[in-house]
Amino acid sequence: MTTASGWGQPRTSLFTDHYELTMLQAALHSGAAHRRSVFEAFARRLPDGRRYGVVGGTGRLLEGLERFRFGAQELDFLARNAVVNDETLAWLADFKFSGNVYGYAEGELYFPNSPILSIESTFAEACILETYVLSVLNHDSAIASAASRMITAAGSRPCIEMGSRRTHEESAVAASRAAVIAGFHSTSNLECGLRYGVLTQGTAAHSFTLLHNTEEDAFRAQVASMGSGTTLLVDTYDVEAAVRKAVEIAGPSLGGVRLDSGDLLAQAHEVRALLDSLGNVNTRITVTSDLDEFAIAALAAAPVDSYGVGTSLVTGSGAPTASMVYKLVSREGDDGEFVSVAKSAKNKASVGGKKQALRRLNARGIATAELVGIGTMPESDGNDRPLIQEFMAGGVLAPGWTGREGVERATERHAASMAEMPGAARRLQRGEPVIPTEYFQAAAAPN
Amino acid sequence: MTTASGWGQPRTSLFTDHYELTMLQAALHSGAAHRRSVFEAFARRLPDGRRYGVVGGTGRLLEGLERFRFGAQELDFLARNAVVNDETLAWLADFKFSGNVYGYAEGELYFPNSPILSIESTFAEACILETYVLSVLNHDSAIASAASRMITAAGSRPCIEMGSRRTHEESAVAASRAAVIAGFHSTSNLECGLRYGVLTQGTAAHSFTLLHNTEEDAFRAQVASMGSGTTLLVDTYDVEAAVRKAVEIAGPSLGGVRLDSGDLLAQAHEVRALLDSLGNVNTRITVTSDLDEFAIAALAAAPVDSYGVGTSLVTGSGAPTASMVYKLVSREGDDGEFVSVAKSAKNKASVGGKKQALRRLNARGIATAELVGIGTMPESDGNDRPLIQEFMAGGVLAPGWTGREGVERATERHAASMAEMPGAARRLQRGEPVIPTEYFQAAAAPN
Repeated sequence: MTTASGWGQPRTSLFTDHYELTMLQAALHSGAAHRRSVFEAFARRLPDGRRYGVVGGTGRLLEGLERFRFGAQELDFLARNAVVNDETLAWLADFKFSGNVYGYAEGELYFPNSPILSIESTFAEACILETYVLSVLNHDSAIASAASRMITAAGSRPCIEMGSRRTHEESAVAASRAAVIAGFHSTSNLECGLRYGVLTQGTAAHSFTLLHNTEEDAFRAQVASMGSGTTLLVDTYDVEAAVRKAVEIAGPSLGGVRLDSGDLLAQAHEVRALLDSLGNVNTRITVTSDLDEFAIAALAAAPVDSYGVGTSLVTGSGAPTASMVYKLVSREGDDGEFVSVAKSAKNKASVGGKKQALRRLNARGIATAELVGIGTMPESDGNDRPLIQEFMAGGVLAPGWTGREGVERATERHAASMAEMPGAARRLQRGEPVIPTEYFQAAAAPN
Repeated sequence: MTTASGWGQPRTSLFTDHYELTMLQAALHSGAAHRRSVFEAFARRLPDGRRYGVVGGTGRLLEGLERFRFGAQELDFLARNAVVNDETLAWLADFKFSGNVYGYAEGELYFPNSPILSIESTFAEACILETYVLSVLNHDSAIASAASRMITAAGSRPCIEMGSRRTHEESAVAASRAAVIAGFHSTSNLECGLRYGVLTQGTAAHSFTLLHNTEEDAFRAQVASMGSGTTLLVDTYDVEAAVRKAVEIAGPSLGGVRLDSGDLLAQAHEVRALLDSLGNVNTRITVTSDLDEFAIAALAAAPVDSYGVGTSLVTGSGAPTASMVYKLVSREGDDGEFVSVAKSAKNKASVGGKKQALRRLNARGIATAELVGIGTMPESDGNDRPLIQEFMAGGVLAPGWTGREGVERATERHAASMAEMPGAARRLQRGEPVIPTEYFQAAAAPN
């Protein structure tokens, strides 16, 4: 099992809820499995108080779709545990996704009910992808959305993703990737560097200082091996003494010092003054220690050069999942025509019908609304930007959405979409979505 | 790359922060890399208001340690990006963990500063494992800790893990495994079934109903294919009409109905009464829809037979990471003797020295304190239970901690440890850790 990048990764086909396959079995039995169907992934609402969401995971999802196959090991498991019957096993053995995938580009902003990803195929094919599609989008979008706010709070100062240890080891790679898409400068996660060509960086930990007989020994060891451009961790014992020692050892070209505890605001001022008084005006100050977008904003006036962000980033800063759902919105009827469908019980009701979407921009190019067309493209006034991109047609992946190129394009897309937003999008205070979602339905729209 | 179970999974060696390897390089340069060292993973505090934590991930961590090797692909990446120098690359190429790993059994409860996992080796070997060790323990323990409270709230009713779609696809497998350890009856996650032999289960989604021309067609299709023991989803349109139709189609042996929206408390009573009036006294009611431990507790008096739990479980019910840290606590000095070490700056200070731990039990076998011995075993009064288990000695894995057997043993361990706890551990209200952590140090303790 080797992907294009040569990296061995497991198949994705059993990242799937049991019921997806039993529904497949029952639908194969009834014959309805072969009806052409459209499923859409969207979020009914944003996390409480957020102004916008950021689409994350699309590229990773498309990479994983290539590995969504049922081999001997998966089929044997399903047979041994009688999850599905022989007819279904035979269908799964032949399965390779052959449908269409389209939706919002990765890095794009989204709002309540934005049709983020659509899968168009038979019910059978689209149904069994549900769990995997949602896992990827819900996780990566949650991280990208939190990361984007941190980037806004940090202004022109670089943010470094350092949260790997606070989340599942594979989530860490995906979180690192999502953070970079939202504007993070680099990551500490080496696996993300390997898979996506993202820049990796690091400083040193307290253990390195404690390993040596003295802090001085540790600093000398680090500078001797890494060069004076390295960043020394100065808060193991006494910060002032450590900064003086660091400058004495590394000289005026000392790259940086890191503060990882205590009152970062006060310390940053003290350390900056001390470094300057010692002549180290170019030595940078990196702060870490449970930073989130609010803590970053609170340090805006402090002489800080970069932020290392960990726990809050990888846990979505209070919103660890994006709450996206994946709903059947249209399917073939007995006559071969498409029929819009939706759950209609009073709770969790959805809007049926295949969606299109535009972002309405005013004359100055600033977004004013998210236009969602039901079964038709919304009427455009000329300043609107189409949002739906084609990722896969007839099971064939379109170029540019995956791997390293996918990350680079998503990063650009995110920056461009943010630039279109009204100023309120960049406020950290809780509020409503910064632009409204408006539905558009043609008078005699087909389904 | 094939594990014992035959399942291809990636190497774990680059689930690692950049600085672990640059510290290794600097320590190889200074010579200190070869000092014998003890690192400990522990949580300084529990998530706000929680009474206890549950150790999760130990088995998974030990499985991954076997794959913590640097092959051509990893070494090439590190060389190409100049992450470390040639001396370090040569060391990594030969690396296979050769030290000792010991700590709390998976499923065991923990409290602030419980020494959950210790790694004893050279600094070089123990340092580079930091990120991976913490990723696994922080994620899986967060889920196990949340799951345990849900199990308490559910009493004798089974809980089914259904959260895969709300978290990263690999986190979902780990979350499912952790939930089962904490007492969940089964999971919807097929990959967890494959890897760990855990029971998988499922019902049906709204899309299955919407796919068919009528709800009746959908129910008939499901019952025809899955048998009358299946569970039908009855809230797509009108719950009462759906329940009547379900009973009409499946008869008295209908296995169950699922409610996924609306006022679950009121609906459970209505549906139970309706089922009973139709003679379906053995048809079970499963409820789902954003349940957490509080919602489960609120349904205690409702006629509900099982709970399907998703989002709240896989996001740790408000605490998505366990905040564990991994600290160097003791290392060899120039004279070959071990020296206790700890960060001493005013914030994030740690207690140095290699730890031992006992759970103090009173005469009735109920836990009264967590005793942590610094550099020595705490004095026991005879009713204490030793907590430290050996997982790996000289790089060799002890039997019984990994794979399916590891999950089974951890499940038993968790139930037994919960049974020892005072009643306050089972309260959902916010409070202090249910037993205090007490340090013990011998008068003339060695380090």
